[in-house]
Amino acid sequence: RRRGYPEAVYCEGKSPDQLRRIATALAARPGDAATIFTRADDVRAAAVLEVLPDARHEPDARLLAWPPGEPDPTGGLVVVVCAGTSDLPVAREAELTARYLGRRTELVVDVGVAGIHRVLARVETLRAADAVVVVAGMDGALPGVVAGLVSAPVVAVPTSVGYGAAFEGLAPLLTMLNACAPGVGVVNIDNGYGGGHLAAQIAAPRAGGRMG
Amino acid sequence: RRRGYPEAVYCEGKSPDQLRRIATALAARPGDAATIFTRADDVRAAAVLEVLPDARHEPDARLLAWPPGEPDPTGGLVVVVCAGTSDLPVAREAELTARYLGRRTELVVDVGVAGIHRVLARVETLRAADAVVVVAGMDGALPGVVAGLVSAPVVAVPTSVGYGAAFEGLAPLLTMLNACAPGVGVVNIDNGYGGGHLAAQIAAPRAGGRMG
Amino acid sequence: RRRGYPEAVYCEGKSPDQLRRIATALAARPGDAATIFTRADDVRAAAVLEVLPDARHEPDARLLAWPPGEPDPTGGLVVVVCAGTSDLPVAREAELTARYLGRRTELVVDVGVAGIHRVLARVETLRAADAVVVVAGMDGALPGVVAGLVSAPVVAVPTSVGYGAAFEGLAPLLTMLNACAPGVGVVNIDNGYGGGHLAAQIAAPRAGGRMG
Amino acid sequence: RRRGYPEAVYCEGKSPDQLRRIATALAARPGDAATIFTRADDVRAAAVLEVLPDARHEPDARLLAWPPGEPDPTGGLVVVVCAGTSDLPVAREAELTARYLGRRTELVVDVGVAGIHRVLARVETLRAADAVVVVAGMDGALPGVVAGLVSAPVVAVPTSVGYGAAFEGLAPLLTMLNACAPGVGVVNIDNGYGGGHLAAQIAAPRAGGRMG
Amino acid sequence: RRRGYPEAVYCEGKSPDQLRRIATALAARPGDAATIFTRADDVRAAAVLEVLPDARHEPDARLLAWPPGEPDPTGGLVVVVCAGTSDLPVAREAELTARYLGRRTELVVDVGVAGIHRVLARVETLRAADAVVVVAGMDGALPGVVAGLVSAPVVAVPTSVGYGAAFEGLAPLLTMLNACAPGVGVVNIDNGYGGGHLAAQIAAPRAGGRMG
Amino acid sequence: RRRGYPEAVYCEGKSPDQLRRIATALAARPGDAATIFTRADDVRAAAVLEVLPDARHEPDARLLAWPPGEPDPTGGLVVVVCAGTSDLPVAREAELTARYLGRRTELVVDVGVAGIHRVLARVETLRAADAVVVVAGMDGALPGVVAGLVSAPVVAVPTSVGYGAAFEGLAPLLTMLNACAPGVGVVNIDNGYGGGHLAAQIAAPRAGGRMG
Amino acid sequence: RRRGYPEAVYCEGKSPDQLRRIATALAARPGDAATIFTRADDVRAAAVLEVLPDARHEPDARLLAWPPGEPDPTGGLVVVVCAGTSDLPVAREAELTARYLGRRTELVVDVGVAGIHRVLARVETLRAADAVVVVAGMDGALPGVVAGLVSAPVVAVPTSVGYGAAFEGLAPLLTMLNACAPGVGVVNIDNGYGGGHLAAQIAAPRAGGRMG
Amino acid sequence: RRRGYPEAVYCEGKSPDQLRRIATALAARPGDAATIFTRADDVRAAAVLEVLPDARHEPDARLLAWPPGEPDPTGGLVVVVCAGTSDLPVAREAELTARYLGRRTELVVDVGVAGIHRVLARVETLRAADAVVVVAGMDGALPGVVAGLVSAPVVAVPTSVGYGAAFEGLAPLLTMLNACAPGVGVVNIDNGYGGGHLAAQIAAPRAGGRMG
Ligand SMILES: Nc1ncnc2c1ncn2[C@@H]1O[C@H](COP(=O)(O)O)[C@@H](O)[C@H]1O
Ligand SMILES: Nc1ncnc2c1ncn2[C@@H]1O[C@H](COP(=O)(O)O)[C@@H](O)[C@H]1O
Ligand SMILES: Nc1ncnc2c1ncn2[C@@H]1O[C@H](COP(=O)(O)O)[C@@H](O)[C@H]1O
Ligand SMILES: Nc1ncnc2c1ncn2[C@@H]1O[C@H](COP(=O)(O)O)[C@@H](O)[C@H]1O
Ligand SMILES: [Mg+2]
Ligand SMILES: [Mg+2]
Ligand SMILES: [Mg+2]
Ligand SMILES: [Mg+2]
Ligand SMILES: [Mg+2]
Ligand SMILES: [Mg+2]
Ligand SMILES: [Mg+2]
Ligand SMILES: [Mg+2]
Repeated sequence: RRRGYPEAVYCEGKSPDQLRRIATALAARPGDAATIFTRADDVRAAAVLEVLPDARHEPDARLLAWPPGEPDPTGGLVVVVCAGTSDLPVAREAELTARYLGRRTELVVDVGVAGIHRVLARVETLRAADAVVVVAGMDGALPGVVAGLVSAPVVAVPTSVGYGAAFEGLAPLLTMLNACAPGVGVVNIDNGYGGGHLAAQIAAPRAGGRMG
Repeated sequence: RRRGYPEAVYCEGKSPDQLRRIATALAARPGDAATIFTRADDVRAAAVLEVLPDARHEPDARLLAWPPGEPDPTGGLVVVVCAGTSDLPVAREAELTARYLGRRTELVVDVGVAGIHRVLARVETLRAADAVVVVAGMDGALPGVVAGLVSAPVVAVPTSVGYGAAFEGLAPLLTMLNACAPGVGVVNIDNGYGGGHLAAQIAAPRAGGRMG
Repeated sequence: RRRGYPEAVYCEGKSPDQLRRIATALAARPGDAATIFTRADDVRAAAVLEVLPDARHEPDARLLAWPPGEPDPTGGLVVVVCAGTSDLPVAREAELTARYLGRRTELVVDVGVAGIHRVLARVETLRAADAVVVVAGMDGALPGVVAGLVSAPVVAVPTSVGYGAAFEGLAPLLTMLNACAPGVGVVNIDNGYGGGHLAAQIAAPRAGGRMG
Repeated sequence: RRRGYPEAVYCEGKSPDQLRRIATALAARPGDAATIFTRADDVRAAAVLEVLPDARHEPDARLLAWPPGEPDPTGGLVVVVCAGTSDLPVAREAELTARYLGRRTELVVDVGVAGIHRVLARVETLRAADAVVVVAGMDGALPGVVAGLVSAPVVAVPTSVGYGAAFEGLAPLLTMLNACAPGVGVVNIDNGYGGGHLAAQIAAPRAGGRMG
Repeated sequence: RRRGYPEAVYCEGKSPDQLRRIATALAARPGDAATIFTRADDVRAAAVLEVLPDARHEPDARLLAWPPGEPDPTGGLVVVVCAGTSDLPVAREAELTARYLGRRTELVVDVGVAGIHRVLARVETLRAADAVVVVAGMDGALPGVVAGLVSAPVVAVPTSVGYGAAFEGLAPLLTMLNACAPGVGVVNIDNGYGGGHLAAQIAAPRAGGRMG
Repeated sequence: RRRGYPEAVYCEGKSPDQLRRIATALAARPGDAATIFTRADDVRAAAVLEVLPDARHEPDARLLAWPPGEPDPTGGLVVVVCAGTSDLPVAREAELTARYLGRRTELVVDVGVAGIHRVLARVETLRAADAVVVVAGMDGALPGVVAGLVSAPVVAVPTSVGYGAAFEGLAPLLTMLNACAPGVGVVNIDNGYGGGHLAAQIAAPRAGGRMG
Repeated sequence: RRRGYPEAVYCEGKSPDQLRRIATALAARPGDAATIFTRADDVRAAAVLEVLPDARHEPDARLLAWPPGEPDPTGGLVVVVCAGTSDLPVAREAELTARYLGRRTELVVDVGVAGIHRVLARVETLRAADAVVVVAGMDGALPGVVAGLVSAPVVAVPTSVGYGAAFEGLAPLLTMLNACAPGVGVVNIDNGYGGGHLAAQIAAPRAGGRMG
Repeated sequence: RRRGYPEAVYCEGKSPDQLRRIATALAARPGDAATIFTRADDVRAAAVLEVLPDARHEPDARLLAWPPGEPDPTGGLVVVVCAGTSDLPVAREAELTARYLGRRTELVVDVGVAGIHRVLARVETLRAADAVVVVAGMDGALPGVVAGLVSAPVVAVPTSVGYGAAFEGLAPLLTMLNACAPGVGVVNIDNGYGGGHLAAQIAAPRAGGRMG
């Protein structure tokens, strides 16, 4: 375990049966370790809930957490930003991951570079963050714009939202790697978990000795 | 010749000798056709100027025009936008092409999505345009932002400016094809000539019968 | 809203439920804004029609419009060209988009570069256009040929029609970006909506002051 | 040796020294085998000519042949087609290869899909061919158009002519593989030698027994 | 129609309904034109057979021909070669296409470069051909080996057979374009129809005047 | 200026003349803004030093800073890690950037995954960091290994070091995006400046209110 | 047959019917040749078992062997290593292949570079191997780490496990080809059979004369 | 050091100065470790020879060894195979690496799949090998053919020899990964050192206990 952070079980490649077995093992050692299940579709979520009925299930984030309670927040604020409906599952996965790692979070939706005023209207929230997670598909231009507006580190999460020349997330991935504003760190396509995790690490409370 | 538009000679693949021969042929039939020489480095430009000493040479756009005079402008306004030093040669090639096709032009430099206020400061100019050419390398995010601010068509020109995951212009090309705002038409990487040409066609005066 | 243009709802990534909710919101503010629903398969179209039974549904274009009436046409003529059956849904999406943005349109089908005489037989129609949308998959050669025949701007829409080395539309996309005739602006693969939108903007009526 | 066809020495990767040694070996067994040297720049050509001063050197095709005399033509006619200056070296390499393999050839230049009438003006010549080699860079659309006009097989040679999204010949290569007209066989990028060789094989005289 | 060759209807993108309509149109003008339906799965084949019950159906080639009778063979011999079970549908499509274009054909299966003796055992058949179609997936090495053994032109058809780094046929496609033996023309991935068509054109009877 | 951070001038695309002009402008407003010049080869560095002779020049990092003095360090510690000689310029660029943004830094060289004990020998240093920058080319495996050993955020900088299937840095870039340990943010290939900048932001002193 | 090695039947592209026919042919010549069926899902496995009811079926490896008995082991030890659940099918395919080729095998699971201590804990086992097969998806970093720890040859098998920028196994494939430690040979993505086969050949008993 | 194997210094990215320093360090601890310098062009080789004048220099392999003496051979035979002139540097690098790792080697040149009889003529030599290294560019078909002829493991080394669709070695790399015969392990493009190293490990003398 990493500094008390919860373990994550990536459900996508696993059968309901395998998940039931993992859940059973967890149930056998309560208090031991918080666990979050990511990328759980309805069938897989049901398998986990069969064994751990009190687990918290957030279908829009395709995520379950067990035990269900979030830790008391410490450290700074993580703001998660995305354009809307399609990127929401990834954004919510990032947000909940950061929460279960112990950060306060805020979610900003419905901002996109095609309507730049909507981004600007949220600048205050963005500037309050200790780490910003920007989730975007298609042209992936949002993280670079946000990074130009804030001085906190920006974690950019490209998504596979889009079609044609979006090439399953390749286009926003490349855009983010080439963001003109410095201060952007990129994670894998659709990797809301990784983005939330990195942001939570960035905004973690720091040991006294290291502070300026 | 296309509706009285000048011919273009693409110099990059041609030897100084071949260019001298082309220039000599032009000199032999004056009044016949205006011609612009694109992508002419210093050596190639010198070869053209040897034969056509009165040609107009714009080194920053790597372009020569002969005869040197621009046509009297008709139609609408073409605004060309870019971020700065590195994209300037392509932007200037676009601007001069539009001019030699008979349009009025304006050039807006030093705007980039990493400093979104600089874009917003120029909105009035952008909105005065009948066609906007946006030239950008690296993340190529600018055309999508501009298209969200104006109702005129946007011609997006990706450039090979950048390094690493910019992949010689592939990154901005994909970004532009995935621009979230509608109304963006993309041309080839570094194709300032093509971008200026398309914008000039869009802003061309229209025959009476077709107007609304 | 962009200069009175209708809003577009991209249905592909949305659940019937989400679409019903969007439609309900629209129904609540009639007269406010025209809306077109794009990429709606039968199930999604049914969801929209449940809430907005008078919406116009064009299954071959996978499109719905509400309110159903087209605006009175202004501006110039948009001609949409494609090779046939497989590209038709994208071509029809482009055509109807241009119509709902207020342009007159004409659709030319069954032309392809492998039978060049069929293209030439339609030159008169092509030359009557203020903007031409050329939709093509596989080799994507048609827009370049058309651009050589007309002086109006050409909007090129590559499609994912084809197999093998067509690589889901990559081949026609590259062909169009490399078209030898200037005056071609390319949009994303299968992006009939974007192509029709851009063409409608190009052929839009122009404010008096800007005309030549 | 293949049915009396000359050997080819590909010069690009070889040092002048290595070429001198190969030429010396050839000189030692005259009458034995005709040889063509392909992709020979000035320095490499000079090295070959030092040893074989009577070799025929065609700089525009970057090719040398020894002994210099072409074989008496047999079989059918190979027509080689290209758009102009930049594709000419590859086209000429194809033509001379076909000649040294024993075919009659004709070279058609200055035809391109952006000016389709120029192609149509040469249809008679194209239809006289037993095999057509079409050489094209950038959009690579010409072979598909030609194949739609003739019933003889078309050998398509993509070239690295172009820039940006031409990706060193990838764009025309894909276009040719996706040509809508059947009857097109594609060879490697810039492979004039291979294209001329294949065309010469196609147009070769056939043994009596196999004919229809 | 191309020199009396049958028309081809590519079924993959078409609905059973569309196919029934095409078949009905054909039935209405008998004697007019032979037609082959390619890439017809069971459902689509049934749709065609509903309207044209006497059509010949070859399920292993996913092909139907109507009217069912093959033309009397003229011209030379087309030999089609492949490694086995997985490439067979494409190979059979090539063979039947060549037959319906009027060529004699022979099919050689179960040869592959991993067992080079099996190729060598069939050299006599290969050398009897006027055109050889080599169909191969995975490493795509067979056409190059065959081309080194025969002097007739080789038409190489890469297939999507394979997995992983075969990248849906990209690997054999590249191999074939880089074949070390000259005399190989490549068609699109899985394009058995195109391969058979090209081979049939190569082996077509030649007009007297053109022969050597 | 971003929160007092120095401006950066990217020298690679600029001529010595352009750099002299930029340096002159800086010299004219001393005390105004610290500036670092990145990617300066010997010729470009000389141009800057002509105008700003007291600038600090670090040739191994291809970087100049003016005024030469580093700010007094605040915030946490940035540790920069790389494998050796070839990655050193990028690593040093990252280190000096972090220093000029006001962080303490430590550089760990000669660690690589092929000798895992060398990484383990430095774990204590790695764990003392508030942000770790890991610079790696070829297989790019080091950031994932380091991220598994520390709880501070890891900034991964892929380099173009390598050959063949390293594809100019694509291989390590993909490796880093797929790192199995969470907590890795990736920047562009060879982007030492961006990596150092992001790490400096992560390790920046935090405003009291945001701390846990 | 290769030196007494069993034949392999790749089931993925074959219909249950084709598999029944192959199995029937095998049953007809017992004692002749051992055969392993790879990539057999439940339906295909059932088809084989219908005809060869005594075949050994290992569902987790998607493999069947007939006759069921493993040969007596000769030669050295093959150790197969992987990270866990998702890579297990490929790892087990490799292990069983090596066993049916006559090698002793050991399977090491649950080691990954993100927890380097777990790899180090198994060094003794790894060093006992005459050939190590390392199976890994996502970042594919494990083979390079293992190769740095052992002197036996390492066979690296990339898997398609992962998402986004793993690009169906491309990322680990490139990582493995760029492994910094020498002594790594790579096979195709998901090719457990090939990896096990190569390892078995490496660890095969050597003829006396060749030994050092 | 790996089991007494010599260290390798990869010279390509290093300056003559850096190499002189490395050589000086080696000279200071003679008897300590054999070293081979790979990818040394003339200038870099001269730098090494300045400090270590008795080093063995093999310019055709771009390699130096110090001390110059080869170890007494142990273990089995490594046969290195390639097609000719262009692949020779890589093949020789592989051969000499295997020699300095203590293996007997044999070099077979002038075999290629386009002349399959030349491969077959060398089968006896190939079958005598305990490990075969096959070096090939362009279509990269040779390793698969060789693997079908021998039962020893084949190490495949793709080279960047070729042009156009060879894509700097990508084509042969993919071919080799898809080789139809099992028993092929692939290394990086142009990686003669890695190929020779792996083959030497495969053919290494085995500790008694592990033998069958
Ligand atoms: N800078 C440019 N970029 C792209 N295409 C160009 C450029 N300049 C000229 N062209 C096109 O190239 C054609 C002339 O090519 P060429 O005959 O080779 O000089 C013109 O008709 C233009 O369409
Ligand atoms: N221009 C060319 N492009 C492609 N292949 C060529 C060319 N010239 C020669 N070749 C091939 O290269 C072989 C000779 O290669 P080499 O032995 O290296 O000179 C010939 O047999 C031809 O098949
Ligand atoms: N080495 C570098 N790598 C990537 N980006 C850089 C580098 N150096 C400077 N930059 C960025 O480039 C911008 C300056 O670009 P320019 O105005 O062209 O000098 C700075 O604001 C940085 O964001
Ligand atoms: N020609 C080569 N190709 C690939 N890797 C090599 C080559 N020569 C040396 N190496 C590797 O590079 C390492 C030395 O790198 P360096 O310390 O930069 O000289 C050695 O341990 C080898 O693993
Ligand atoms: Mg910022
Ligand atoms: Mg707009
Ligand atoms: Mg035009
Ligand atoms: Mg034809
Ligand atoms: Mg041949
Ligand atoms: Mg960590
Ligand atoms: Mg090792
Ligand atoms: Mg073998």
